Amino acid sequence: MKVSFLIFCCTVAVYAHSQSHSHRTERSLKFPDIAGYKTMKCDLHQHTVFSDGNVWPNIRVQESLKDGLDAISLTEHLEYQPHKADIPHPDRNRSYELALTEAKSHNLIIIRGSEITRSMPPGHSNAIFIEDANKLLISDSIQVFQEAKRQKAFTFWNHPSWIRQRPNGIATLTDMHRRLIKDKLLDGIEVVNEHTYSDEALQIALDNNLTIMGTSDIHGLIDWEHNVPHGHRPITLVFAKEANAEAIHEGLSNRRTVALHNNLLIGRDEFLVPLVEASLKVDTAFYADKSDVLTLVIRNLTSIEFTLQNRSGYTLHEHSDLVTVQPGEKETINVKTVKRLPNVSLKFEVLNAINAPNRHPVITLKGKMQ
Amino acid sequence: MKVSFLIFCCTVAVYAHSQSHSHRTERSLKFPDIAGYKTMKCDLHQHTVFSDGNVWPNIRVQESLKDGLDAISLTEHLEYQPHKADIPHPDRNRSYELALTEAKSHNLIIIRGSEITRSMPPGHSNAIFIEDANKLLISDSIQVFQEAKRQKAFTFWNHPSWIRQRPNGIATLTDMHRRLIKDKLLDGIEVVNEHTYSDEALQIALDNNLTIMGTSDIHGLIDWEHNVPHGHRPITLVFAKEANAEAIHEGLSNRRTVALHNNLLIGRDEFLVPLVEASLKVDTAFYADKSDVLTLVIRNLTSIEFTLQNRSGYTLHEHSDLVTVQPGEKETINVKTVKRLPNVSLKFEVLNAINAPNRHPVITLKGKMQ
Amino acid sequence: MKVSFLIFCCTVAVYAHSQSHSHRTERSLKFPDIAGYKTMKCDLHQHTVFSDGNVWPNIRVQESLKDGLDAISLTEHLEYQPHKADIPHPDRNRSYELALTEAKSHNLIIIRGSEITRSMPPGHSNAIFIEDANKLLISDSIQVFQEAKRQKAFTFWNHPSWIRQRPNGIATLTDMHRRLIKDKLLDGIEVVNEHTYSDEALQIALDNNLTIMGTSDIHGLIDWEHNVPHGHRPITLVFAKEANAEAIHEGLSNRRTVALHNNLLIGRDEFLVPLVEASLKVDTAFYADKSDVLTLVIRNLTSIEFTLQNRSGYTLHEHSDLVTVQPGEKETINVKTVKRLPNVSLKFEVLNAINAPNRHPVITLKGKMQ
Amino acid sequence: MKVSFLIFCCTVAVYAHSQSHSHRTERSLKFPDIAGYKTMKCDLHQHTVFSDGNVWPNIRVQESLKDGLDAISLTEHLEYQPHKADIPHPDRNRSYELALTEAKSHNLIIIRGSEITRSMPPGHSNAIFIEDANKLLISDSIQVFQEAKRQKAFTFWNHPSWIRQRPNGIATLTDMHRRLIKDKLLDGIEVVNEHTYSDEALQIALDNNLTIMGTSDIHGLIDWEHNVPHGHRPITLVFAKEANAEAIHEGLSNRRTVALHNNLLIGRDEFLVPLVEASLKVDTAFYADKSDVLTLVIRNLTSIEFTLQNRSGYTLHEHSDLVTVQPGEKETINVKTVKRLPNVSLKFEVLNAINAPNRHPVITLKGKMQ
Repeated sequence: MKVSFLIFCCTVAVYAHSQSHSHRTERSLKFPDIAGYKTMKCDLHQHTVFSDGNVWPNIRVQESLKDGLDAISLTEHLEYQPHKADIPHPDRNRSYELALTEAKSHNLIIIRGSEITRSMPPGHSNAIFIEDANKLLISDSIQVFQEAKRQKAFTFWNHPSWIRQRPNGIATLTDMHRRLIKDKLLDGIEVVNEHTYSDEALQIALDNNLTIMGTSDIHGLIDWEHNVPHGHRPITLVFAKEANAEAIHEGLSNRRTVALHNNLLIGRDEFLVPLVEASLKVDTAFYADKSDVLTLVIRNLTSIEFTLQNRSGYTLHEHSDLVTVQPGEKETINVKTVKRLPNVSLKFEVLNAINAPNRHPVITLKGKMQ
Repeated sequence: MKVSFLIFCCTVAVYAHSQSHSHRTERSLKFPDIAGYKTMKCDLHQHTVFSDGNVWPNIRVQESLKDGLDAISLTEHLEYQPHKADIPHPDRNRSYELALTEAKSHNLIIIRGSEITRSMPPGHSNAIFIEDANKLLISDSIQVFQEAKRQKAFTFWNHPSWIRQRPNGIATLTDMHRRLIKDKLLDGIEVVNEHTYSDEALQIALDNNLTIMGTSDIHGLIDWEHNVPHGHRPITLVFAKEANAEAIHEGLSNRRTVALHNNLLIGRDEFLVPLVEASLKVDTAFYADKSDVLTLVIRNLTSIEFTLQNRSGYTLHEHSDLVTVQPGEKETINVKTVKRLPNVSLKFEVLNAINAPNRHPVITLKGKMQ
Repeated sequence: MKVSFLIFCCTVAVYAHSQSHSHRTERSLKFPDIAGYKTMKCDLHQHTVFSDGNVWPNIRVQESLKDGLDAISLTEHLEYQPHKADIPHPDRNRSYELALTEAKSHNLIIIRGSEITRSMPPGHSNAIFIEDANKLLISDSIQVFQEAKRQKAFTFWNHPSWIRQRPNGIATLTDMHRRLIKDKLLDGIEVVNEHTYSDEALQIALDNNLTIMGTSDIHGLIDWEHNVPHGHRPITLVFAKEANAEAIHEGLSNRRTVALHNNLLIGRDEFLVPLVEASLKVDTAFYADKSDVLTLVIRNLTSIEFTLQNRSGYTLHEHSDLVTVQPGEKETINVKTVKRLPNVSLKFEVLNAINAPNRHPVITLKGKMQ
Repeated sequence: MKVSFLIFCCTVAVYAHSQSHSHRTERSLKFPDIAGYKTMKCDLHQHTVFSDGNVWPNIRVQESLKDGLDAISLTEHLEYQPHKADIPHPDRNRSYELALTEAKSHNLIIIRGSEITRSMPPGHSNAIFIEDANKLLISDSIQVFQEAKRQKAFTFWNHPSWIRQRPNGIATLTDMHRRLIKDKLLDGIEVVNEHTYSDEALQIALDNNLTIMGTSDIHGLIDWEHNVPHGHRPITLVFAKEANAEAIHEGLSNRRTVALHNNLLIGRDEFLVPLVEASLKVDTAFYADKSDVLTLVIRNLTSIEFTLQNRSGYTLHEHSDLVTVQPGEKETINVKTVKRLPNVSLKFEVLNAINAPNRHPVITLKGKMQ
């Protein structure tokens, strides 16, 4: 394999990508915890000048603090080092260490990681929670995963729908991937990378019990690439038992994630439904005098817009079946329950969340009457 | 019937209503024409100080010009005249005449109209394109429609889901309505009034071949009531053969309308589908070098946000099945067509449009390759 | 005198006027109290449909509540009644009474007033705090002021620079005005009316000990006329001993006012200086380690932008001599005091305040070191 | 001299600095040409990872393109190389060469430069338009300037008011500076560096015929440091005979500059007055019917806000003596000329421009009547 074949950078896409147009005005990303777990906001695939990125590691730390993240990993390409003439540093852990120093006085977890850079198969992969990046400089594509696992790494397949390696954009499992999965050498798969979301990657994750990942794969500046503050970078929400690195590792290993991409949440219902139900709270519920129409004030605790489809069986007095709730704001809906209900329990399909290709979770909004 | 029983004004709702949060920054409403018809933006239910509104007719004209409307009607209550002590003018056409004078040097059509104000049944109704409002001061609820029709009026049932007259908010046809419809005395029904949309009213329109109407029923100021410029008033889009009053009358009489309420379009597929297809144009369509992913730039020619659900059979490279297109802007989507297609023909369900309760039209985006 | 000669409405200016471009995003006007006085926000010259305005009195009350005003007067033209054919109500107090009803459950003072409408001299004048508007329908221009004074009114000269009555825009005192002033029949003068400010009117106020007034003279909608929320209407700040109508009357009579016009404050130094000094507070003052540069955080408590010119004798480390402080925000300035000062006492000329034509007050920013 | 003494970075200020609050919404900086010269927007003091900055040179090029600059220089510290352990590249021209490659296909001039890093005296200086940065690694503070001049460099004194080297913030000439100036080894002086402006530096420039410079001295990200797009970086406007590097060099050498800092322009009247007069154009000038008040529409062609003080001898009809003109917008003023003038020629003092400490240039707005 010639690594030089791979020097086309993900960020230099030859076509325009969709710009996010959310109502966000504050930069920091916000999601509530769910029962039993901390919701940890992680971007586990990033680059700096120590591979083919364009900033020093301290900028990645500062960006992440501005974005309100809990954990990041600077996953420099092991094999692709275009700045090597200028930065010949032999230690592939260097980027991690500089980030660690920068983050010292802040509440941001830095996770040691590296990108294993191959043509397809198996394409690019990340190994994070590793002990020593240098020991991953192994040319055999299977052996490098074995070494990563010897280091107790969490591994995931990067941008399986990347046009450079998949001209039709369709993520497809190869025999090598099947072997890696079977041998428990591959744990996760990016269903979201940079500006792309892949239905096929999601299906692969579901079919093979892989962890659903979303990452920025940032090379330039988050602000420019994601139109901050209107847009935001993709991240992985990890449901961790505690707010520390070990718990994130455990959460990732046990598939407890939801990927975020613009206003879209992608995950398994087991975590997606509690996340959305914790995100949308009933602030107020009452019947006005001389009216049998239920007034419900829904508060969105997150920094993304929700698009809901009414599945309550009742019709609404001001909306059709489509209801949007802006980030950080309240939305009032009036539900024609015909008779007065003793308490609120209404089903909505969450169109900006996805639990399988073209399938959306259904949540229940619950609340007590005033 | 005691009119004093009706003095509760629509605008003094006892509960909060949903505030629109669109990306609109320009005030004027914009919709394209469709094949064979001018798309006329009409608000045919409004009040001034000449009944229970709070402004002089010239303000209604100025508001409408700012909103980019083509036609309005000031439909003062015939029977409910709370300012009568101050404005005892005996001619119920006075409001119309003052608006006509104000609009003289502008491109705004003023349609003579009146509101026939009754308790339920039949509730409130509007008669527009009348000859003389004074002659509609008839106490019998059937005879007043007969007189309106003698004047060749177009008539419609106002806010059939009004809480004051329907405490559960459910629009329900009465025997009197059935008789009015059967005798061709009632032409249309408001499915949208002020801040409300009614699925049941839409079903009544469909079941009884009534014209689908949306009106502001404004009493105060449009700017305050509809959070201008972020929100906008509800209107009726009338598909008229020419841009004049007679053609609007003909279009209304032949059920050629789409009602607009926030970002929602309500109508029959026959007009809704061409309207949306004229609103969303394919600006650019191409396959980039070394890629079999179709890039499509969709331009939204209207002042409302569109929410589309992918029904093309293909998956998208950056979106899930949900795509939003902001007012007046472009959205790029990348479609994984697997093989290169010779031209574009992709189906989308339009979630912010409704052709029956809980049913959305499906449109086809068409374009040529570059 | 033919009243018909006066039918040109102030609002139909034939030229464009400057649009305010402030950073205001909240609508309500905010100014702090000063020592010994409540700062009462008053708009004492307004019109409704009861003379040549375009809205019912309740809209004026609602606008004023949105603008955070404390007191208003609806000063209908006594002699100019273009809506008389429609509103023949013989009682010229009617507008006041309707406003009073609307304001009942709100914290807004309604002051009975009328506009005495004459060609020049003496032009238009307002009499407020009157007992009965009907009794001011007197054709003699002196006698009407005498009757107003008999009713213990506060009177002021409206828009003395009005182009319709002063084609060169220069406010000029006539013999009739001199007589009214000498006989204590005229108390104040508008230096600000609608979109205009008059240096010459200010000089007349100073030379003749008249109360400095600023009013909207609104006929249409405040929102449209003043580009709300970016701009705002002109008002008079009255320094009153208590927050009630009598105290406003006493404050006006004793010349205790500052007029507000966009970001401009116009008044006598006696009130202007304490108002600005109460508006701009030193939040923080300190010398950083190893630095002899004083850091000062100034907080603007008002809803207008301040433009200050440094008169402290020191130079600044980040600004030239010009410093702006945005509405409701903080501005940090770094003052090169050469040696460390024990406390803060720095002079600034306030360029957006005026105490005489082309003359700006000088204030002292005071604070303690942290 | 111990270089380690100098490791305090300019960007880590221990106190808050003023945030710009302009109405700018577009990022690109805009200034018109003046008679005989191109107005070249230059930022000639910047850092990358090749000294103590935090980004790769390509980001500096991309930032500059977004800001609409014409020329930049990456002036790495020669003596201060905190990233040397990672980037040991021996060639001090490396940063320049990488920027040159990045800029190749763009319209941005890259000027070779270096920062000569010393404790005070003489503090830090930049040499730009050099031939070889490596040859400037000379420990003697005079000899390094002599070598720079041998290379035909343009040299300037950086941040003479820097708190780290001047705890009271007062720029002060030392004997060494006097000698450098006398020997024609020092050409310019930063009156603006990063967030600071120095009256004393301006006086030194004027007293010693030095070129007035403004630079960002950026180490981190322009977007974050200058609150883009609301704020912008400081730059030097160079008036060059042609749009190329040589002409910029010639313009700098001949003192033809204006420094820009937030909305402030600093320069000699010779260039400041034509720049402002080219920036503010009279779009329209007329007297309306029956009025002797001159209406003037002024268009601001730049991306900064102008604050003008009326020195015309006439009073204004809507403004006091203070007039602001927003970036890229029009402002209407109405001038009470008493008699009708045949053409427009009105003097204004430009408060947001400075030609000497506390002194502002006076410009003449000229235009023809419609």
